[in-house]
Amino acid sequence: MPPGAMLQVVPVLPTLTGATSRLCCLGFLERSIRTGLRLCIPSVRRQVHTSAVFHRLNEHWGSKKVRERKLQLFRATMDPKLEEILAPLRISVKEQGDVVRKLKESGAPEVDIKKAVVELKARKKVLEDKELSLCPADLAFERARMEDLLKRRFFYDQSFAIYGGITGQYDFGPMGCATKNNLLQAWRRHFVLEEGMLEVDCTILTPEPVLKASGHMDRFADFMVKDVENGECFRLDHLIKAHLEKLASDKGTTVEEKAEYEDIVVKLDGMSKDEMSAVLRRFQMKSPITGNELTDAIEFNLMFATQIGPSGLIKGFLRPETAQGIFVNFKRLLQFNQGKLPFAAAQIGSAFRNEISPRSGLIRVREFQMAEIEHFVDPSDKTHPKFESVKNLQLVLYSACDQMDGKSARPVRLGSAVAEKLIANETLGYFLGRIHMFLVKVGIDPARLRFRQHMANEMAHYASDCWDAEIKTSYGWVECVGCADRSCFDLQQHSKATNVRLIAEKLLPTPKTVDFVEILPQKAVIGKEFKKEAKDVMDALAGLSEAQIVDVEEAFEGGGTYQLTYPSGKQVELRKEMVQVKRGQKTVHVEEVVPGVIEPSFGVGRVLYALFEHNFRMREGDEQRTYLTLPPIVAPLKCSVLPLSGNAEFIPIVTRVSNSLRSCDISHKVDDSGGSIGKRYARTDEIAIPFGITVDFDSLQEPHTVTLRERDSMQQVRCTVDEVVELVRDLSLGHKTWSADVLPNYPKFEQQESISTPNTN
Amino acid sequence: MPPGAMLQVVPVLPTLTGATSRLCCLGFLERSIRTGLRLCIPSVRRQVHTSAVFHRLNEHWGSKKVRERKLQLFRATMDPKLEEILAPLRISVKEQGDVVRKLKESGAPEVDIKKAVVELKARKKVLEDKELSLCPADLAFERARMEDLLKRRFFYDQSFAIYGGITGQYDFGPMGCATKNNLLQAWRRHFVLEEGMLEVDCTILTPEPVLKASGHMDRFADFMVKDVENGECFRLDHLIKAHLEKLASDKGTTVEEKAEYEDIVVKLDGMSKDEMSAVLRRFQMKSPITGNELTDAIEFNLMFATQIGPSGLIKGFLRPETAQGIFVNFKRLLQFNQGKLPFAAAQIGSAFRNEISPRSGLIRVREFQMAEIEHFVDPSDKTHPKFESVKNLQLVLYSACDQMDGKSARPVRLGSAVAEKLIANETLGYFLGRIHMFLVKVGIDPARLRFRQHMANEMAHYASDCWDAEIKTSYGWVECVGCADRSCFDLQQHSKATNVRLIAEKLLPTPKTVDFVEILPQKAVIGKEFKKEAKDVMDALAGLSEAQIVDVEEAFEGGGTYQLTYPSGKQVELRKEMVQVKRGQKTVHVEEVVPGVIEPSFGVGRVLYALFEHNFRMREGDEQRTYLTLPPIVAPLKCSVLPLSGNAEFIPIVTRVSNSLRSCDISHKVDDSGGSIGKRYARTDEIAIPFGITVDFDSLQEPHTVTLRERDSMQQVRCTVDEVVELVRDLSLGHKTWSADVLPNYPKFEQQESISTPNTN
Repeated sequence: MPPGAMLQVVPVLPTLTGATSRLCCLGFLERSIRTGLRLCIPSVRRQVHTSAVFHRLNEHWGSKKVRERKLQLFRATMDPKLEEILAPLRISVKEQGDVVRKLKESGAPEVDIKKAVVELKARKKVLEDKELSLCPADLAFERARMEDLLKRRFFYDQSFAIYGGITGQYDFGPMGCATKNNLLQAWRRHFVLEEGMLEVDCTILTPEPVLKASGHMDRFADFMVKDVENGECFRLDHLIKAHLEKLASDKGTTVEEKAEYEDIVVKLDGMSKDEMSAVLRRFQMKSPITGNELTDAIEFNLMFATQIGPSGLIKGFLRPETAQGIFVNFKRLLQFNQGKLPFAAAQIGSAFRNEISPRSGLIRVREFQMAEIEHFVDPSDKTHPKFESVKNLQLVLYSACDQMDGKSARPVRLGSAVAEKLIANETLGYFLGRIHMFLVKVGIDPARLRFRQHMANEMAHYASDCWDAEIKTSYGWVECVGCADRSCFDLQQHSKATNVRLIAEKLLPTPKTVDFVEILPQKAVIGKEFKKEAKDVMDALAGLSEAQIVDVEEAFEGGGTYQLTYPSGKQVELRKEMVQVKRGQKTVHVEEVVPGVIEPSFGVGRVLYALFEHNFRMREGDEQRTYLTLPPIVAPLKCSVLPLSGNAEFIPIVTRVSNSLRSCDISHKVDDSGGSIGKRYARTDEIAIPFGITVDFDSLQEPHTVTLRERDSMQQVRCTVDEVVELVRDLSLGHKTWSADVLPNYPKFEQQESISTPNTN
Repeated sequence: MPPGAMLQVVPVLPTLTGATSRLCCLGFLERSIRTGLRLCIPSVRRQVHTSAVFHRLNEHWGSKKVRERKLQLFRATMDPKLEEILAPLRISVKEQGDVVRKLKESGAPEVDIKKAVVELKARKKVLEDKELSLCPADLAFERARMEDLLKRRFFYDQSFAIYGGITGQYDFGPMGCATKNNLLQAWRRHFVLEEGMLEVDCTILTPEPVLKASGHMDRFADFMVKDVENGECFRLDHLIKAHLEKLASDKGTTVEEKAEYEDIVVKLDGMSKDEMSAVLRRFQMKSPITGNELTDAIEFNLMFATQIGPSGLIKGFLRPETAQGIFVNFKRLLQFNQGKLPFAAAQIGSAFRNEISPRSGLIRVREFQMAEIEHFVDPSDKTHPKFESVKNLQLVLYSACDQMDGKSARPVRLGSAVAEKLIANETLGYFLGRIHMFLVKVGIDPARLRFRQHMANEMAHYASDCWDAEIKTSYGWVECVGCADRSCFDLQQHSKATNVRLIAEKLLPTPKTVDFVEILPQKAVIGKEFKKEAKDVMDALAGLSEAQIVDVEEAFEGGGTYQLTYPSGKQVELRKEMVQVKRGQKTVHVEEVVPGVIEPSFGVGRVLYALFEHNFRMREGDEQRTYLTLPPIVAPLKCSVLPLSGNAEFIPIVTRVSNSLRSCDISHKVDDSGGSIGKRYARTDEIAIPFGITVDFDSLQEPHTVTLRERDSMQQVRCTVDEVVELVRDLSLGHKTWSADVLPNYPKFEQQESISTPNTN
């Protein structure tokens, strides 16, 4: 792949649709799955690393020492010349950013602000594209080579391929499934167990009213057009982009026309349905496949619909995110937590979105796994008891303000970011830190990780702050984790829809005296009047709010009656003699609050894909020999056991080692197939097995010894059969490291590994 | 609950529909989820155990010693008087069993055999009902009490309850979710890791052609009727049963009429759509709710339908079982296994069935988890290298033959069962043994576990043997795991549907010489004739089977031409000069086989439910105090840490213990809420926490010590803070046991636990 090849990928990437910006209020899905493909590479200056650098660094992700070395490198490689080129573009962004700020301050009409924001985004995109074009990054990475490895060794592949395949659906094979399971188990340990979260597992099938309340019924949509003859569908923004790019590349197109087309493409992101339809008509676009006419823009809801039960009367959807399952169980969870705030619930599970045109492999799919946390907190107190433990952590933050100023992302300590109100509160800051730690621990390169803050116009009206963990891949910066302070929105929505009060009680620092008004039913009168229905009346009276009781009081004072409404909707007339309205004062010790929600939300497939990219390597001197440097914690298997040859004497030792590994629950693979030991090492390297135990002729002598090999360095030591299993266990669990604990303590075993192309079986 | 109360449950349980018996060819779902509710209790004689017996036995499920004691008890409690009552019923079953056998032997018409089988099943049901009615079983078990505990502590509960709830869907709360995760992790270790299976994770959304090939499109259905006015649906067999039971209980009903109604109810199981419709019309049944007329019987497919993609043209379904995902990936999996047989693939995941009327809690739901294994094997060699390790295992087998003879299930050693061909082959036997071991390990009472063989008429035409692990619960014997030898059916079906050859190559013991016929294209002629299309012609020629080549040869010999068909369906004319047909002999070293499949298939929710029932207990002397004796391996949390009181001096020790537990990945809960220590123990017992560490005043002195309590025995010992974490870890992993390793080695701590009702918070 030539050095510039990565850039050719850019044009096929989708931009945001108009729908997206309206939808960024709806939780992770809209924000992450849909907005993740934007190409903004502001930290280009820090991206200058070569394959050789990586090779030196790839030993142990997450070890503190290596992280430090990386960060040093990261800062040392900024190139001042690049900054010169980018400077005018940065100024252009800042100018427009200032325009937006002024318009907002002066309370300008919404439409004017919106126009200015579209222009701001357009300028940001020009800056980001330039940054990308200057970036010599990742020359060593060839996506096609990696995809070949992942497909050949069945990490994952298209679902139902023997039936022609379905786009946007992937099956995970043995190695992909094990890696994903390990990633999820690491997530569970890092978040659920470490923080004592309440993990739940809710159903995928979701009835319509729940998604009506959450906003998904009305707003979870993309624009599309249909071929009027055959009904084929096209995502409208993709279609316009492809059409205009084709026009721009025509010979006869003038420079002015080209500039105009580019301008439209850049602004597609913020366009409304009517604006997009207008572009469609102006350029008389037809189906690119049949040449047939196209319909007007249609808003297409991205949820998969089905019917629950046989009657066809209960409309249901496959959940578009896992979060709603937690919200609807809030009362039970609060009760489980003995009524106390704060607490967090977590869920790992499948979610679905009926993409109009899925693409980009695991990044934009129709069926995917999420891991979401809802941390419920007293809205007036968002401090976090463990914030202290992360405050010195340095994250690369790309704040809304810096984005508007045309600046780059920059490393900031969490403590200062929260102190300076760059991050809204300690709890949000704590989770950003924990997300960072998790991603680095499982193998994400910290130099290709940043946290981007949503700009005010991207954020839902209720959200007070929102940051996305974006990971740089060959598809650009991909949003992999969202982390938002969603205020009280979700619980309030479900409360409104169900009339169930989703609140928590908060102990007051000192008891306080409050006025109260209550309604006392006159049971005898009600019983006589309503007979069988008396209970319904009593229940309805018990459900009256204070405001309603005041209404009752006022109605009677005016000499009238009051229409009492049952939950069923039925109304009855209430007369003065039926109730007594009483006022007084009481001492209260608790206050009711609607909890706020901080929501970290992981796109599991996206993190997994980024892991594969960040850990894909070729052996120096033999680029045919590719391998994956996944850290032991997520590697699909921890260890291989290889007899040097088919010699029967090796079998008992191989069996003994394998049984010991199994009894310690260490996943491993015995490879006693033919082929040189070098070929078999290459095959285990391909599937990321970090450690290899080889039984050779020296193993036959007492005390029985074996060699232990580390995947990334290919170094080997010799140790006894008794030692090796414990060693592998400690290395796999991260209790020991190769360089600190193994190399110095065991004799090095020197043998030239035959470098050869991996066996493709 | 009065002694006979369990029997009252019987009438509301669904019987099998006609659809079921036709469907038992389709894999686990049809067989297990649908047929699991039959009430056949033939091993009644071994079910005589009381709460006290259980109490003594409940210390450690799965410990070898306890299992032995149970089996002794199990045999000792047979009551000869019961057998006297049952004897004539057994004879009646056997008579009819012999009739069926004779009809089959004499090659009688299908319809006669079918009639005889319906009668056989009816007699079996009478026997089973009588056995059940004689069974004093499980007096100590109160389902309502258990359900109260599970709901109150949010193990699981109805989904979307604040929206009125959806029947047949359940959300797992923190404790249920953790128990399920632990169960699945144990499954993964016991099957996937232990046997080196290839675990995959395939998509839920499945396109129609896949389910057409698997048979689900045509046959995965139940019969229902609709209210003609409001469209309300009723499962037809349930409706008829309820109606006739009501008629039978009317005062005016004669003994003869009653007998007739009972006869119909018993035979519903085997009825066709027309037969059921006839019953519906004969008794002029109306909607039990509105009294409106009902439609004729409708076959209702139980899969949830949706559309994949925006066009609405790709019809998809939520998978009704996970197995198909493995079959469609067979080629990739075989390749991953380097082309070798046998190998097994496994999958854990969600599956869906749109039940007409879900019921019985977790047992019959619309969304559930399955864990399935497909073991691919050379069809001519179903030996298993590890069969030796299970051959002495004794399982309670309920063979097809014993069922036809009116006999009971009986304990049989696996070795003899396979030797006597009671179980078809070693591989099937090996899996039955492993299933048994797994279920007992996770906490299923072996005295309430049996393996029932499908009778020939229950089995699909292609299946050579099929056994269900049935677990006795208060709902009767519930089929929780299916284990079938499915021969080559599934791969052949997908092969037929896709034209992709799903085969494996098998090394021949000695090479053999075979005749071959091949077709050699005359490239020049084809190129000249077909030009651009020449490649398509070449591809089509390469795809011809031997039989087709012979057809070509014959066509040319007869002086004609041959119509060659492209994969697209297009045909072209092939003339003699275009190809040469060559015959000869060659030496082959391998032979192609379509692998056979052995399929163990677990209904996770059902196993989980049975676990809860088998492990639900009340404290002797305080029946308000209920608890769960889940073994540590599946218990949701392994340990509690309780400061004796709110004394601030306890905090550092509690924190130290908690941190040590966390660093060892031991899930635990610190309960520093108010309430007596007894109340807090009761609360942790309710959520099955097996071990409790208490920090008391003695803990403050050097060396710091704590008490360690075991949930089931409520015994306590005293040990140092340094010892306790390792002790809990070893106990949780099963490396140590309370009675063998803890009690003898640590000083016993005696303190009367205050017995009090559990705190309901």
